Amino acid sequence: MPDVRLRDFSEDHSALALNTATLGHNMDGCGAGWSPEQVIDACAERGYGAITWWRREIGQRAMEIGERTRAAGMQVSGLCRSPFLVGPLAPRTRQGVLDDFFGSIEMASDLGASCLTICVGGVVEDTHSIRDSLKEVATIVAEAAPVAQAAGVRLALEPLNPVYGGNRSCLVTVRDAVDMCDAIDHPALALAIDVYHVWWDTTLGAELKRAGAGRIAGYHLCDWLADTQDVLLDRGMMGEGVADLKDIRGAVEGAGYTGFCEVEIFSAGNWWKRDPAEVLDICVERFRTVC
Amino acid sequence: MPDVRLRDFSEDHSALALNTATLGHNMDGCGAGWSPEQVIDACAERGYGAITWWRREIGQRAMEIGERTRAAGMQVSGLCRSPFLVGPLAPRTRQGVLDDFFGSIEMASDLGASCLTICVGGVVEDTHSIRDSLKEVATIVAEAAPVAQAAGVRLALEPLNPVYGGNRSCLVTVRDAVDMCDAIDHPALALAIDVYHVWWDTTLGAELKRAGAGRIAGYHLCDWLADTQDVLLDRGMMGEGVADLKDIRGAVEGAGYTGFCEVEIFSAGNWWKRDPAEVLDICVERFRTVC
Repeated sequence: MPDVRLRDFSEDHSALALNTATLGHNMDGCGAGWSPEQVIDACAERGYGAITWWRREIGQRAMEIGERTRAAGMQVSGLCRSPFLVGPLAPRTRQGVLDDFFGSIEMASDLGASCLTICVGGVVEDTHSIRDSLKEVATIVAEAAPVAQAAGVRLALEPLNPVYGGNRSCLVTVRDAVDMCDAIDHPALALAIDVYHVWWDTTLGAELKRAGAGRIAGYHLCDWLADTQDVLLDRGMMGEGVADLKDIRGAVEGAGYTGFCEVEIFSAGNWWKRDPAEVLDICVERFRTVC
Repeated sequence: MPDVRLRDFSEDHSALALNTATLGHNMDGCGAGWSPEQVIDACAERGYGAITWWRREIGQRAMEIGERTRAAGMQVSGLCRSPFLVGPLAPRTRQGVLDDFFGSIEMASDLGASCLTICVGGVVEDTHSIRDSLKEVATIVAEAAPVAQAAGVRLALEPLNPVYGGNRSCLVTVRDAVDMCDAIDHPALALAIDVYHVWWDTTLGAELKRAGAGRIAGYHLCDWLADTQDVLLDRGMMGEGVADLKDIRGAVEGAGYTGFCEVEIFSAGNWWKRDPAEVLDICVERFRTVC
């Protein structure tokens, strides 16, 4: 058990946020296809405290959707996400990366989102070097940080599970993410901590203490399935897997974090196939009991 | 580049070892099905310095195959492997684990293998705790260490990539492996460092220095493919992927390691389908040029 007194969610889930990827809204053709309005109404009805949206849902309606979220009594906890900044999945030129990055910052600002999630992208082609790739990432993030600050948006650097190191994120540990924050040293820059990506890391508590509460912009919930069938689209609902959810939250809250806990479950074969209303109900129940 | 003067393999590959998994010999029905004698002759012909075998190839012929390997001028660099010690893939009882573990130690001893690789197994069912699982692992390893010492075999604890944390290995970082060695503190206990499992870890050099040369029993080569299709059976040949092979070897040799470099490539869709003679030739060429 963690050595910090955890917030008690057993009878209060106002700290619960929905990341709409939990309903499949991060990918074309997945999920039940609810409109933002349907999502807002369903979350408000169930007492969620916030929603994090994906760019593909927002289109040209950022201000409208942000206002509607707040009018329903919730906050916009975040926007997913920046483009990949480097590596095989990034736009082909640095200018292309920056244009899309700045566009995502503007959308987050229009939404009134607390932060924009950054997935930094994989190892830079032909470098064979995760270190050199991280250096390249840092130059891009440093260029975007003042733009984000001017827009009133925090950049949430998200270290991803090392399984994604090759193509989706050369930033794979909280330690490296804290080091990058320290090196860039800009107030717009913070971290997003996701159970899926950090559940295995026994240094999590120490690294987050090093980061400090001011540097944690988000905490994401799901579970790691012992026998995962797909490392991108087979995340588990909280309680289904092997992650020590209370210990991980202890690390996050032990560093001083008091913000939302955002459920983000990519699950093409299971949760995305269910009725979104059922999924939202189960998230509430699991949040109150096992998180 | 690493800050250590690397051994020069460009015209001398006597430090090269073959792990027979590179020919598919770790799984039924994979590879060309060469006999141990064919493997020995082909490796000796090409100047390999050692071979690491899998238990399923050895059957009742451990002494014979060990002697034949040495008669061909090579060493037996290792035996793969212990049973999983805990988690969903381990034998169902502790006694079942120990019986199979001790059997594998005896086989390694009969082979004259330098070490027995240990894959510790995933998170213990219903614990939801990687920490508690590691503690359970440590009690089993501590019980086996004196048995291994009496048999003249070193136990090579292999931290696996965090993607295997749920089912194959709750030991996922070199840091945790060094901590476990320190805690058990037995001379029969050491580490195996595999590029596939550690390529993403920017703390590798520091952790291996903490371990010390005497604690490194093996170094395994392959590459991490940026767009890997299968996290178990789609490893790359050295040079095909994103791992910084010289930097990683710098970390291993910087800690004082002077032993074999063992090629271990699980590749159901590519390398296992090729003529083993071609695979062995390419391993030599890549070892001399990119490792």
